[in-house]
Amino acid sequence: MNYKIVFNRLGSLLLVEAALMALPLTVGILYKEKTALAFLITIVILAIAGNILKIKKSEAERFYAKEGYFLVALTWLLFSAFGALPFFISHAIPNYFDAFFETVSGFTTTGSTILTDIESMPRSLLFWRAFTHFIGGMGILVFVIAIFPHTEGSAMHIMRAESPGPSVGKLVSKLKATARLLYGIYCIMTLVLIILLKAGGMPLFDSVTNAFATAGTGGFCALNNSIEGYSSAYAEVVLGIFMVLFGVNFNLYYLIIAKHGKQALKSEELRWYLGFIAASTFVITLVLTFTRHPFAESLRKAFFQVSSIISTTGFTSTDYDYWPMVCKIVLFLLMFIGSCAGSTGGGIKISRIVVLVKSTIRTVKKAFNPRSVETIKLEGKPLDEDMVHSINSFLSLYMIVMAVSIFVVSIDGKGMVETITSVVTCMNNVGPAFGAIGPSGNFANFSNLTKIVLAFDMLAGRLELIPMFMLFTKYIIPRKYA
Amino acid sequence: MNYKIVFNRLGSLLLVEAALMALPLTVGILYKEKTALAFLITIVILAIAGNILKIKKSEAERFYAKEGYFLVALTWLLFSAFGALPFFISHAIPNYFDAFFETVSGFTTTGSTILTDIESMPRSLLFWRAFTHFIGGMGILVFVIAIFPHTEGSAMHIMRAESPGPSVGKLVSKLKATARLLYGIYCIMTLVLIILLKAGGMPLFDSVTNAFATAGTGGFCALNNSIEGYSSAYAEVVLGIFMVLFGVNFNLYYLIIAKHGKQALKSEELRWYLGFIAASTFVITLVLTFTRHPFAESLRKAFFQVSSIISTTGFTSTDYDYWPMVCKIVLFLLMFIGSCAGSTGGGIKISRIVVLVKSTIRTVKKAFNPRSVETIKLEGKPLDEDMVHSINSFLSLYMIVMAVSIFVVSIDGKGMVETITSVVTCMNNVGPAFGAIGPSGNFANFSNLTKIVLAFDMLAGRLELIPMFMLFTKYIIPRKYA
Repeated sequence: MNYKIVFNRLGSLLLVEAALMALPLTVGILYKEKTALAFLITIVILAIAGNILKIKKSEAERFYAKEGYFLVALTWLLFSAFGALPFFISHAIPNYFDAFFETVSGFTTTGSTILTDIESMPRSLLFWRAFTHFIGGMGILVFVIAIFPHTEGSAMHIMRAESPGPSVGKLVSKLKATARLLYGIYCIMTLVLIILLKAGGMPLFDSVTNAFATAGTGGFCALNNSIEGYSSAYAEVVLGIFMVLFGVNFNLYYLIIAKHGKQALKSEELRWYLGFIAASTFVITLVLTFTRHPFAESLRKAFFQVSSIISTTGFTSTDYDYWPMVCKIVLFLLMFIGSCAGSTGGGIKISRIVVLVKSTIRTVKKAFNPRSVETIKLEGKPLDEDMVHSINSFLSLYMIVMAVSIFVVSIDGKGMVETITSVVTCMNNVGPAFGAIGPSGNFANFSNLTKIVLAFDMLAGRLELIPMFMLFTKYIIPRKYA
Repeated sequence: MNYKIVFNRLGSLLLVEAALMALPLTVGILYKEKTALAFLITIVILAIAGNILKIKKSEAERFYAKEGYFLVALTWLLFSAFGALPFFISHAIPNYFDAFFETVSGFTTTGSTILTDIESMPRSLLFWRAFTHFIGGMGILVFVIAIFPHTEGSAMHIMRAESPGPSVGKLVSKLKATARLLYGIYCIMTLVLIILLKAGGMPLFDSVTNAFATAGTGGFCALNNSIEGYSSAYAEVVLGIFMVLFGVNFNLYYLIIAKHGKQALKSEELRWYLGFIAASTFVITLVLTFTRHPFAESLRKAFFQVSSIISTTGFTSTDYDYWPMVCKIVLFLLMFIGSCAGSTGGGIKISRIVVLVKSTIRTVKKAFNPRSVETIKLEGKPLDEDMVHSINSFLSLYMIVMAVSIFVVSIDGKGMVETITSVVTCMNNVGPAFGAIGPSGNFANFSNLTKIVLAFDMLAGRLELIPMFMLFTKYIIPRKYA
């Protein structure tokens, strides 16, 4: 392991975080809040820590998969650890574990909160909360690749380790240009959303923070009742549509820009994604129409909630925990599925689900006709068998991490629904769950141990499991691999 | 598909079921119960149906994997459909769906019941209920292989389709001899258990039925409060030990008989199995000692319940639904793990869990060192990659079936705990679950739709998924494969 290069880059990254904090600091100064000072102190700490890490320069440019995973895991951990400081220093969140949980939840775009009264928080902290979603959505390191010089090799290993989805490809010939393009699309879409929300009568501060939370498919909202608090059908519909849009593979937007719009619409992953949304919305609309609201309202609420959960945003426009069980189970199952690969959302990802379904069908067929040979196709192209197996292994690892997490969380002694769904919502980066941690609840009553486990799950979910295991392997202790 | 041979054999099998019903009929006559008549009527119906199916003789001996799966799936369905008749005809269970559910639960050795007052049932029906566990435990068709002539090829395809576990091997050179050997061990162990229970003061009828339910890892008991009803620490310990024993791969018993005891004890699967039991018993004993009972009582109750759940028997000696959450979650997770391959128990099976864990570790390693090549070993031998992939596919299929089932069950509008854990307990052939379907509850309040879905899950779980899909494929409609 080339520690020097990893720590050197880590130092640069902490300086980037310091720079990013200038934004909430400005918000604090504008609103004349004392918390501005907490941001200032954190920026100074980050600057010192960053420069210490950068002292030793790396001579060798050895940067492979190991280094990529290690750098990504450490970056996300440290960004969260330092990002929690403004909450802690300002005493807005007096327990550091809580502050850490909230910040991990922000960067991983989960949106699970430990806050019991969000509206009483200073504006600068609410802004920072939403901004962590925006930073984490497209990826901390993808951002760095976009603005700083990197060799193609190291950039590739970093993108592979940080980007969601089974395969990471280049859109254009250089990864740096690809990263810029992705961030460009991301920023423009966010800007359009801010304008649309503002035009609909939402205050500017809320328009910006909600747009950040939507872009990153995060779900932190400045109101206690989430989007329900605005009582605006307009905002509900606009956010509903944009949550779907941010859950789409960003490569498709590039195709549209490059005037291959038809090809984009043919995307198999997109069709499954929209199919899941349509089917789930249909079922919930049907049930709500028969049991609760008029058809139009049922449709709106169903679409909003389905879009919010499948994109793993986690906004709520109603307390779905009071819906009939079939609606709740549809949402519960959507949490596992998640959004498209290459989007800002979480979950197992549509493309993985498609491959798992296809490989499962193949296994059943093979059992009946042992001599049959069939390759699995995705997007019309035959898929490498190694990819199929690694996706299958992903599912095992995902289930094992989930089982172990549920066991540790159960020590907390909460209800069965809370014990299981807290892990499900955190690992899939959704946000709210069911029962006491449903739309009206929060994660405040969990023990510190549970919060650490859930924070690990959020990171494991966002980074798609592998990088987080880097921190527990022998690679950390430089034995023969040093 | 060679339908003639399948239906011909199916006919013979129904005659076997008719013969097996002579036993509960005798019990009915001995206890002078009117239900004896219901058994007599069912035997006549089975004899007629069996002979109709046998009218057309098959000329060709074409019998491959397809035929094996199809025969196994149909046999289990029809055995349950006809086996439900005595309950229905005698009006002991007036709703046929309930009777079908109860019988499927019996043959698949699940032990989930729809009965609200078990003790009010006629003895002959209680006997039949326990006897279905005994028949289903080792396998309906394995029994037939043991007593009727079969070609080696067809016997192999039948055993593969019916026996639990990723790989089915011969113990001795002929499958027929293997099947006889397995049934021999099975019957002797059951007999020893009956004697031990009787010696401890349990009435003979209860000793026999509980031994049947233990041997098949089923869990139906003649008392409303399951084993708790006997208030016997002796019975609790004896049954606890025998549930563990029936969850062991029967091949190991053959090794012991063949004087390779040392080799049996070295079994990797056995060590994991005992490891899971020891670790779970330790955790639950610890928690119960601190919160409920004295140490010795805690240990006894913990061991009994862990043994009951991991072997997927489902007996209860206390209402574990009132235990602290961490104990409940340990039991919940054990339901998925299940017993050893080649035992009478259900679940994913220890050997599959071991392979999944190992292949997952390999994937993580490979991510860090892309060029590393490693084969997975089980029981010291390198495992074929095809086997590793098929086990991974098994997990996907298992999860997909579970997700779809949970969705359909959610239409019933029961609680979230009941909706999810009913599917988990039925697919893993355990029996009781949590909440309203916990040790003190039953499955009576579910809708007929739910009961059908759960019955499907029980069959899919017992037959390890693949055969049940046979009934939904194009093979059923004889198109090009006819």
